[in-house]
Amino acid sequence: MRVVVIGGVAAGMSAASQAKRRSPDAEVVVLERGPYVSYGACGTPYNIEDPARMMEDLIAISAERFRTERRIDVRLGHAAVAIDAGAKRVEVEALDSGARSSLGYERLIIATGASAVRLPVPGAELDGIFTLRELTDGQALKRALAAPGVKRVAVIGGGYIGLEMCEVLRARGFEVTLIERQETVATGFDGGLARLVREELERGGVQVLTSVAVTGFERAGGTLRVLTGAGAVEADVALVAVGVRPNVALAREAGIALGATGAIATDDRLRTNLPDIFAAGDCAEAWHLVSERPAWIPLGTTANKQGKLAGAGAVGGDQRFPGVVGTSAFKVFGLEVGRTGLGVEEARRLGFDAFRSESKQPTRAGSYPGGSPAHTVLTVDGRTGRLLGAQQVAREGVPGRVNVLAMALTAKLTVDALAWLDLAYAPPFAPVYDPVLIAGAVAEKELAARRGG
Amino acid sequence: MRVVVIGGVAAGMSAASQAKRRSPDAEVVVLERGPYVSYGACGTPYNIEDPARMMEDLIAISAERFRTERRIDVRLGHAAVAIDAGAKRVEVEALDSGARSSLGYERLIIATGASAVRLPVPGAELDGIFTLRELTDGQALKRALAAPGVKRVAVIGGGYIGLEMCEVLRARGFEVTLIERQETVATGFDGGLARLVREELERGGVQVLTSVAVTGFERAGGTLRVLTGAGAVEADVALVAVGVRPNVALAREAGIALGATGAIATDDRLRTNLPDIFAAGDCAEAWHLVSERPAWIPLGTTANKQGKLAGAGAVGGDQRFPGVVGTSAFKVFGLEVGRTGLGVEEARRLGFDAFRSESKQPTRAGSYPGGSPAHTVLTVDGRTGRLLGAQQVAREGVPGRVNVLAMALTAKLTVDALAWLDLAYAPPFAPVYDPVLIAGAVAEKELAARRGG
Repeated sequence: MRVVVIGGVAAGMSAASQAKRRSPDAEVVVLERGPYVSYGACGTPYNIEDPARMMEDLIAISAERFRTERRIDVRLGHAAVAIDAGAKRVEVEALDSGARSSLGYERLIIATGASAVRLPVPGAELDGIFTLRELTDGQALKRALAAPGVKRVAVIGGGYIGLEMCEVLRARGFEVTLIERQETVATGFDGGLARLVREELERGGVQVLTSVAVTGFERAGGTLRVLTGAGAVEADVALVAVGVRPNVALAREAGIALGATGAIATDDRLRTNLPDIFAAGDCAEAWHLVSERPAWIPLGTTANKQGKLAGAGAVGGDQRFPGVVGTSAFKVFGLEVGRTGLGVEEARRLGFDAFRSESKQPTRAGSYPGGSPAHTVLTVDGRTGRLLGAQQVAREGVPGRVNVLAMALTAKLTVDALAWLDLAYAPPFAPVYDPVLIAGAVAEKELAARRGG
Repeated sequence: MRVVVIGGVAAGMSAASQAKRRSPDAEVVVLERGPYVSYGACGTPYNIEDPARMMEDLIAISAERFRTERRIDVRLGHAAVAIDAGAKRVEVEALDSGARSSLGYERLIIATGASAVRLPVPGAELDGIFTLRELTDGQALKRALAAPGVKRVAVIGGGYIGLEMCEVLRARGFEVTLIERQETVATGFDGGLARLVREELERGGVQVLTSVAVTGFERAGGTLRVLTGAGAVEADVALVAVGVRPNVALAREAGIALGATGAIATDDRLRTNLPDIFAAGDCAEAWHLVSERPAWIPLGTTANKQGKLAGAGAVGGDQRFPGVVGTSAFKVFGLEVGRTGLGVEEARRLGFDAFRSESKQPTRAGSYPGGSPAHTVLTVDGRTGRLLGAQQVAREGVPGRVNVLAMALTAKLTVDALAWLDLAYAPPFAPVYDPVLIAGAVAEKELAARRGG
């Protein structure tokens, strides 16, 4: 049996490895357009922070090791250009020569990932403008930053990649201007929490412009001018980090159904609508356990898990992917920022009678030095009291607390139950009432008030 | 209506506050033997670490403030010496004068806490030997440590208080010898994890003696000799931290039923077997959600919650205490140590076909500097695959991960489900597969092997 995997990063290599492990006699072929497989793109900002580190350090396992140690036929520089689902064949182009060939499959796994969005404005293709998605993007940006005379960087987009890069660039001594189209940075976060993030950026020396749209780019000698509705920002290098979109053209042209999100629709075994074709990772949807509908939340964690299950499924496994709750976190200077589940507006759009509950509780007991406030915002279902989402900003402990809240979403807990959880306490780690318990208790009180209780 | 609360620390003051808040017209009387109420005893070690801090800093709200701001009748230096449950009266002794009086109640809440165990050996009452439980204990020990010439401290007992004190005493420059009767330090922890704790103590300069029982104490001039089966340990001060036992004599003599653990038996509304008498905190049992039987796990977190519910129940509230899973954590030098649920031996004693699953995964992604291994041991039900308990030792993130595992116990998850949780990931916080996910995946594989899968 031949299993063909299109795409060799997180989902693709997880799928290929799992298929080969479960079915050692299967022939597993990975088609990867680029020069690298199996890299942790999430580490790119931190690799850029350290000029002594090679970007290739982000590669977990090289293509060569996949070939020799795992007997996976990894083909770098090879793009799948068409899928004939009826004939069960993939049309492949060797990108260096342009040569075409046809590759049959018994099972096909689509792991084509997502691409960085480029701004649709004049000058967007000028030199000195970068995106950050693939390993090669990271290499190009790191090289550009190392060029003599580069001092000013414009970061366009206040999502987590833009924010992580602000910190990294300041750590390397660059002058940094962050330009965000929306009113707040930290896309998708509660406005109150986003203000805390903005203040931290400014404390870190980042010039933050919000409600400012980029309208174009110009080059004036060595200087790049980022044109905005609020005037031009001069820079040596610009990083465009305004989001990603799923790479679905190949799948769509083959007749594979996309979901309402625009990503590839899959069932809980990562199967697409066409026989023997699976999809996994940033090109695919995942079931959202809170909204109870498909969602597209492209993250490495989900990509790895989906890939593993798609690879197992391709060789006969029957394990189901339980779904996601939309948990993510990032660090920006001294702040930790995390979220899980639905924001209030998002929940309302989905039809929930949702309300926002805000609370503040220190990260440590008063008897232990160094605590600071953890700011939590919960999204609560006003009808049932169920927790629908949570976001937190603090100087420590955010991933752990957000993960507890993610578990609460998975278990479909009400905010009342949240207030009575048996959580770990010691003065260095939390007050006797952990911020999660306080968030639950505050929300419960608000819920009772709304109910006239 | 008069509500009488016996004991004014965590459970007692939570109960009194909640009763008064819910029923402002009720008369709420708190009888406290000692000179202080409402202190966070867990902070005592860290208060001792800082010579500039007053032990009274641990008091959350003073007796005076309870009286004036909350209109709670706090009577310091007053001990309840007998309960007449038939007549609904408490016999009270004013400890300074010895005067007795009788106080009627409509509702009684017993929050008498627990007492430090003293070693039943010759010389146990000599000068220079301390326990650490009440605020006054902390004051006495701190004073003794400040005396001129005090350099050597023997800590007897390797539970969390003993271990926290080892760190604190080393931070203050004392020579510290830890004497533990059992084979390993970190009472109740897995042997493999306990070894990591021991190594950390030794790296921190603590002399660690295990499998060594204290047989007595002697004074030779200014020196205290701690006599053990392995010879004498010379010290200036000794701290006995060999556990606590619930203060139940008063309740027992009144005909209140104790549970199998020796603590006061309560139902899920914190009611004892006698009408209108509640019990909460370290003197009382709590329902254990994993073992599904009453447990006695005296911790401030549970005491606060139980007190709150007992106080509400006393004035007509009807909320149930869901129970505990036995979550706790402490810090010792650079290590964080946490647990939740049942250990393997404990689970087997309770009749589970339990097995131990060990795993190791870094705390951060390889792309981010400074990660180190998180060591996790799970207790797994071999019949059902259900998670029964978890312990973890690492240099960071332990409380958060243990709390996620505590939530998994609360939700009665199997280890397989654990492996697919949607947890937060960013390189500074975790690898793309969080240590919790890896622990679940490793346990699932072991479970399948045991089943011959």
